[in-house]
Amino acid sequence: MAKEKKVEQITDMEADFAQWFTDVCLKAELVDYSGVKGLFILRPYGYAIWENIQAYLDRRFKELGHENVSMPLLIPESLLQKEKDHVEGFAPECAWVTVGGSEPLPERLCVRPTSETLFCDHWSHVVHSWRDLPMKYNQWCSVLRWEKTTRPFLRGREFLWQEGHTLHATPEEAIAETEQMLEVYADCAEQLLAMPVVKGVKTDKEKFAGAERTYTIECMMHDRKALQSGTSHYLGDSFARAFNICFADKNNQQAYPHQTSWGVSTRIIGGIIMTHGDNNGLVLPPEVAPIQVIVVPVAQHKPGVLDKAAEVCRILKDAGIRAKMDDSDNSLGWKCAQWEMKGVPLRLELGPKDMEADRCVCVRRDSFEKITVALPELLRRVPELLAEVQLGLYRRAKENLDSHTYAAATLEEARAIQEKEGGFIKTMWCGDLACEMAMKEQAGMTSRCIPFAQEKLGDTCACCGKPAKQMIYWGVAY
Amino acid sequence: MAKEKKVEQITDMEADFAQWFTDVCLKAELVDYSGVKGLFILRPYGYAIWENIQAYLDRRFKELGHENVSMPLLIPESLLQKEKDHVEGFAPECAWVTVGGSEPLPERLCVRPTSETLFCDHWSHVVHSWRDLPMKYNQWCSVLRWEKTTRPFLRGREFLWQEGHTLHATPEEAIAETEQMLEVYADCAEQLLAMPVVKGVKTDKEKFAGAERTYTIECMMHDRKALQSGTSHYLGDSFARAFNICFADKNNQQAYPHQTSWGVSTRIIGGIIMTHGDNNGLVLPPEVAPIQVIVVPVAQHKPGVLDKAAEVCRILKDAGIRAKMDDSDNSLGWKCAQWEMKGVPLRLELGPKDMEADRCVCVRRDSFEKITVALPELLRRVPELLAEVQLGLYRRAKENLDSHTYAAATLEEARAIQEKEGGFIKTMWCGDLACEMAMKEQAGMTSRCIPFAQEKLGDTCACCGKPAKQMIYWGVAY
Repeated sequence: MAKEKKVEQITDMEADFAQWFTDVCLKAELVDYSGVKGLFILRPYGYAIWENIQAYLDRRFKELGHENVSMPLLIPESLLQKEKDHVEGFAPECAWVTVGGSEPLPERLCVRPTSETLFCDHWSHVVHSWRDLPMKYNQWCSVLRWEKTTRPFLRGREFLWQEGHTLHATPEEAIAETEQMLEVYADCAEQLLAMPVVKGVKTDKEKFAGAERTYTIECMMHDRKALQSGTSHYLGDSFARAFNICFADKNNQQAYPHQTSWGVSTRIIGGIIMTHGDNNGLVLPPEVAPIQVIVVPVAQHKPGVLDKAAEVCRILKDAGIRAKMDDSDNSLGWKCAQWEMKGVPLRLELGPKDMEADRCVCVRRDSFEKITVALPELLRRVPELLAEVQLGLYRRAKENLDSHTYAAATLEEARAIQEKEGGFIKTMWCGDLACEMAMKEQAGMTSRCIPFAQEKLGDTCACCGKPAKQMIYWGVAY
Repeated sequence: MAKEKKVEQITDMEADFAQWFTDVCLKAELVDYSGVKGLFILRPYGYAIWENIQAYLDRRFKELGHENVSMPLLIPESLLQKEKDHVEGFAPECAWVTVGGSEPLPERLCVRPTSETLFCDHWSHVVHSWRDLPMKYNQWCSVLRWEKTTRPFLRGREFLWQEGHTLHATPEEAIAETEQMLEVYADCAEQLLAMPVVKGVKTDKEKFAGAERTYTIECMMHDRKALQSGTSHYLGDSFARAFNICFADKNNQQAYPHQTSWGVSTRIIGGIIMTHGDNNGLVLPPEVAPIQVIVVPVAQHKPGVLDKAAEVCRILKDAGIRAKMDDSDNSLGWKCAQWEMKGVPLRLELGPKDMEADRCVCVRRDSFEKITVALPELLRRVPELLAEVQLGLYRRAKENLDSHTYAAATLEEARAIQEKEGGFIKTMWCGDLACEMAMKEQAGMTSRCIPFAQEKLGDTCACCGKPAKQMIYWGVAY
């Protein structure tokens, strides 16, 4: 009995990119709405993507000597207020617990928007000597930020993330850590998620509340908007001073340690969707796909088809490939559309004629190309095809990034390009906040980063004409 | 330069068991207090134990077809109130968010004490047909319960746990799931944590708020008190009715599905401490120990010692053993005491004389027995010794459980045994709440469970003398 369920259509991304995005999130069964605005449910398929990102990052963190911990969910208001810049940045979007066990609390408690203050409070108790340093901690958790506008993955009042927090004896060591973790994030984006990045430093205006310096990886989405996909902060010693974290150095002198923090969140799943997705739905890079190969039996009622498909699926699984067979009673067309919607990188079709010829047909999700594979070649060809999809997705995204990154000599030129083409616009910049504000007000763009890979486009700031200090990237960002 | 740090003493467990427990938690660096009463910090060593428990359970869950998800942190008050028994049980210990982003919320939001209501709300949107069943979900998260008295691991206002939630077409299937998950918990306790369990059913008085039936594993601590270490609930269809979760069955009739939930929390780490610990600190079963072998060089300033110790450590690690070398500048005595405090199952000492003789000395944490191991035998002997420690710890705990489980014919006899010996006291029981209350009021014991392994101790209830229905376990519980 075939299901009468119809394959649901999604909005074309060219017609309404925002609606397309929401459609993909829901129809690919990544998320569902909950009863509270901005709090999303991560469904099994969406969470499995996050688990793969977690596994990659957790392994990299541990290889570099970081240890996982669990800090409390709630921060006393007085603790949050200890570092002035930090509290200014976060207090306006805090959610507050005011009642516990039927009684009003003596001090209200903030649901953590980030945990710097908690790590600092703990460290002020346990750090005494240079022998206690470095402290290299990470935690996997969710945080709350009470935003006005919310969207699945991109802006939630709650989101899942990891937050790394480290403490070092010297600024040099802390800065090296900050830069190292940005490289880990860049590797994760490029290698696992096939998302090319622009690495750089945030301007003072855009840096983390309380940081001396914020590094960022910026990615370009299909609609040519920017997505900040991971940040790493050098916090200097201002938190250590505010929380009185001291250590006796090797000369037995009291000193303040230097600190970093860095985070990647489920927001990056929004980035995967908007980097690779198409009008048939999600497109997942094989490295991060919960299902890499979906085995679809053709004419599965015919004798031997299901057994053969199961055997093929088993062979792939035994080789460490994340394969799954769809032996449901849905129609072949429905199955194909459904697994396309879910972005499975490779669909493997196998029917009676294929069995006769000892072959199967692989369909690439990225190009819909059909490749006939002789079954004895299966374990050589499938990993090759997966690697080709991974590389193909990266190249396509890189092509999008490169072909929509423009140089501009003046603010007017930058605005004209943004209006016509979108994308990243690079200009020279004097370093003044006033020019950054002017770009925002007159061209609708924020600074994305001062890229590590500097180019000398000219001598003067595109906004004010004064001598330029560096090249900067501008864009419209999520 | 040797550190002047002294090894800190802990309270003897015979003198003050509660203080001993707290000392171990702090001195073994498992937890730290935070600025909010009842919210504890899980430090790297404590969290690493939890990660090992997570890895075991997550693997077992996935093998049985469960999928991880992430539900929101906050529950609207109206949602929590939908199932009447459930809200009665949990509302008194909820923490409430009443302000978000500087504004009072229109409806206050409870920080989840457990997530049945959230899963139900989601399922009411996505479950339509028998094809959608079973739903087998799990989530790893923290929950808040605003308790008055708090202790590390045993009773926190926040604790980490996993909560499994499943939905089935028939009660039989849901009950089988409930029982299956209890077996997984029993395996985890016994195989991983070397904690023998008594498996059984909770009385109506002690069951989960909203459940039809609660299964439990009960463990006995050193002080002969009981620790409920994992529970699995059959919820019937009352949540489905309250949340209007309906599905079309194979005959196209609308039906309510049947539900389960089950959880294990960081509380079980308290169980490990109180089952295996001694007056030198923590004792960890090798299967769950973050460090299984600590390699301690003796006279490490002598030529070649550190190199040889590092080589031995590397050989162990390459064989998949969680080994670590302590090459710090602490004294040998301090190192030994410190790693004993942290409960590392095996200490491997290696000095110049050992090098000459091509051997090392292994010291078992459970018995302090010293075993000389020829280095060529290392990879055979170390796994053997670890297995012996694991088994030895289990046997010792089982001996404690068995030798302090007593039968009593009357309430008076039960009280006398409890006062003199503590432990589990088994009696026959009529099944009436009144008798359960009497045992609580007159002998200070709660019912632990109606064990699966029933014995016929007599014909009449120990409390009222009426005909007995079953054998029950009583005890003083954490």
